[in-house]
Amino acid sequence: MAAIGLQNDGSVKRLAFTEDDCRARTLFSEWLIAAGASIRIDAAGNLIGRIEGTEPGLPALVTGSHLDTVPTGGRFDGALGVLAGLEVIRSFKDQAISLRHPLEVVAFADEESTMVGCKGMTGVASDNPADYTCSNGQSISDNLPRTGGNWQQLAQARRSDDAIAAFVELHVEQGGILESRGDAIGLVEGVVGQRRFLVRIEGQANHAGTTPMDARQDALATAAQVILAVQELANNHPGDPVGTVGKLQLWPNAANVVPGQVELSVDLRDLSLEVLSELVEDLESRLHSISRASGCPISLLPQFSVDPTPAHLSVTEAIAASAQTLGLSCSALPSRASHDSQEMGRRWPMGMIFVPSRGGLSHSAAEFTSSRQCADGTAVLMQSLVRLDQRLNKVPG
Amino acid sequence: MAAIGLQNDGSVKRLAFTEDDCRARTLFSEWLIAAGASIRIDAAGNLIGRIEGTEPGLPALVTGSHLDTVPTGGRFDGALGVLAGLEVIRSFKDQAISLRHPLEVVAFADEESTMVGCKGMTGVASDNPADYTCSNGQSISDNLPRTGGNWQQLAQARRSDDAIAAFVELHVEQGGILESRGDAIGLVEGVVGQRRFLVRIEGQANHAGTTPMDARQDALATAAQVILAVQELANNHPGDPVGTVGKLQLWPNAANVVPGQVELSVDLRDLSLEVLSELVEDLESRLHSISRASGCPISLLPQFSVDPTPAHLSVTEAIAASAQTLGLSCSALPSRASHDSQEMGRRWPMGMIFVPSRGGLSHSAAEFTSSRQCADGTAVLMQSLVRLDQRLNKVPG
Repeated sequence: MAAIGLQNDGSVKRLAFTEDDCRARTLFSEWLIAAGASIRIDAAGNLIGRIEGTEPGLPALVTGSHLDTVPTGGRFDGALGVLAGLEVIRSFKDQAISLRHPLEVVAFADEESTMVGCKGMTGVASDNPADYTCSNGQSISDNLPRTGGNWQQLAQARRSDDAIAAFVELHVEQGGILESRGDAIGLVEGVVGQRRFLVRIEGQANHAGTTPMDARQDALATAAQVILAVQELANNHPGDPVGTVGKLQLWPNAANVVPGQVELSVDLRDLSLEVLSELVEDLESRLHSISRASGCPISLLPQFSVDPTPAHLSVTEAIAASAQTLGLSCSALPSRASHDSQEMGRRWPMGMIFVPSRGGLSHSAAEFTSSRQCADGTAVLMQSLVRLDQRLNKVPG
Repeated sequence: MAAIGLQNDGSVKRLAFTEDDCRARTLFSEWLIAAGASIRIDAAGNLIGRIEGTEPGLPALVTGSHLDTVPTGGRFDGALGVLAGLEVIRSFKDQAISLRHPLEVVAFADEESTMVGCKGMTGVASDNPADYTCSNGQSISDNLPRTGGNWQQLAQARRSDDAIAAFVELHVEQGGILESRGDAIGLVEGVVGQRRFLVRIEGQANHAGTTPMDARQDALATAAQVILAVQELANNHPGDPVGTVGKLQLWPNAANVVPGQVELSVDLRDLSLEVLSELVEDLESRLHSISRASGCPISLLPQFSVDPTPAHLSVTEAIAASAQTLGLSCSALPSRASHDSQEMGRRWPMGMIFVPSRGGLSHSAAEFTSSRQCADGTAVLMQSLVRLDQRLNKVPG
């Protein structure tokens, strides 16, 4: 799969809806069919392979992830979870295992940018095409048909509550926690929520030579206090929230001019909705103090907000028990990156399995998880699905 | 003069060596000739009007400033000092005053960008054309002939030590100190020196979600400490130094990535060479501490260095006495902006006269000094030249 979109530097580029993304999906369809699955593509562009269960009428156990990548992606992010699902289907066939529930393996559409696939399946996708910025620069309505999706019929991608029993996603950690702990398997507690803001600071542009220090309204010096406040509030808060100023622009941006205006991004993430609210309150109060002391008006403009998605106990128990049975060391951690599971988990019981990322690196050519580690994660995925198949007797609420 | 290069918003644009700059110089030549001065243009493109003195062989008293502007310049910056010199020649003629020394009025070439004019006259201009970045985007060797200069003969623009007795420049303050003190005349103590650095901070770009706070090497959070350190060292130092971070770039500059690298400018200015050295030492020591604490290597790369130019006591005394005689309130202050006088003062006794800038504004359409204030400054300039003419009996060392 990694040969499709492979770049000279070893990174993989399969931007959603491009020719390489479509080639990857076609290859995956062929593998699914060869493994005995039926396939369909929903209106949101999700490619779904399915094998039926032994008891008619039960909701599906669903696994999967995505085949699209960022511009300089790695070989494992997304693809591992999709191909692990395929491997589970193959192994069930090889070992003549039949599940009571149907099993579906989904390659979700465009996880890295619009998340139109998982949002379409859960029914929270926007119906305004202007809300979607596709990484190939084209409109979502032009893009969807390339993958067999259909913008006009997007609502039909929504699955009913009783169509799905649980969702399990295997993914590389994209961080260094498992490696540093020496654990083979990460039991994901949930996907963190996120609050993203634009902070605008209004100073007074002025001559850097002729303006005395005490007559300045320096927007960048004020921004420096904001940057340190964001770092401090994440550091000081109980738990492990993260706070980042990753983007900053200043005007006029000349060495001999006191900066007149700064805009910067603030990104706050935590697994707890309560902690997220406290962080935002803390930020507001700090900005207020900084603004008063510096004389520079500061505005805090919400950009977007994603609530945390906790994993479901029924799924995490199945994952933990499977890891234990397989003799794999396992520990709990949050997912601080976005995943299809964060949307799926808002409607159905969800769990995620992480495997280690070497050096914590991802979204680069250096992204690496060994074959052994991938196989361990896949074995846990397979065992977890078997356990869920045995324990889930009704449609979960 | 302000009609040449006047923009719709009221600002004036006469970039050096452009057609409008040449038109301004031609108009000024005509006025000089009409006032009875002889004119010549030296190899550095300086336009020099001259009236002879009564005692042959004495060095010249020189005044002047520049006619070129920044892209959105005002009507007074530079032009006032040039036209005041013309007015002095006219007044001497009207009042039948003869000086012992020759009097020269200079429109220096390209003060706002390369300073090739005053540097050519003092003999410190570089002979490498690549060292000059002209604001019209063309090379200095192509530009000089437009004004009657000559790149190949640049060395000939250098005046000998005994050619000039003293240099006096009248200029608008470009700051708000005189206005706030309610003084008509500023007695410039000297032109501040400047140390300009590029600071490069090396962090580690990383996922803003998956990288825990204690595993980050955040180049922007480190930069924030540098920005506050520059502000603090200027605030804390005795005297009135200024320190500015006006320019900043970060990579990759994305809201969801911990910044991996930052480059920023540091600009330090003070009238005292000793204070400047102390500021640089203080900066180095603070950067060292910040780097050690943050784990991000920081490099301090000198960009350029201009030593302070103190005014000469003989000239400041003449200015102070003239203001007193004319009943104009006068107070001392440094010039924190660059001027032709900073170069002239390295070779010959120099003094500068400031007049107030409304609201401290310059380099904009809002730059304003009243006709009364311009006339006061011109009267002090004229009186000062008369006093210098009487007192200077030999070539000053």
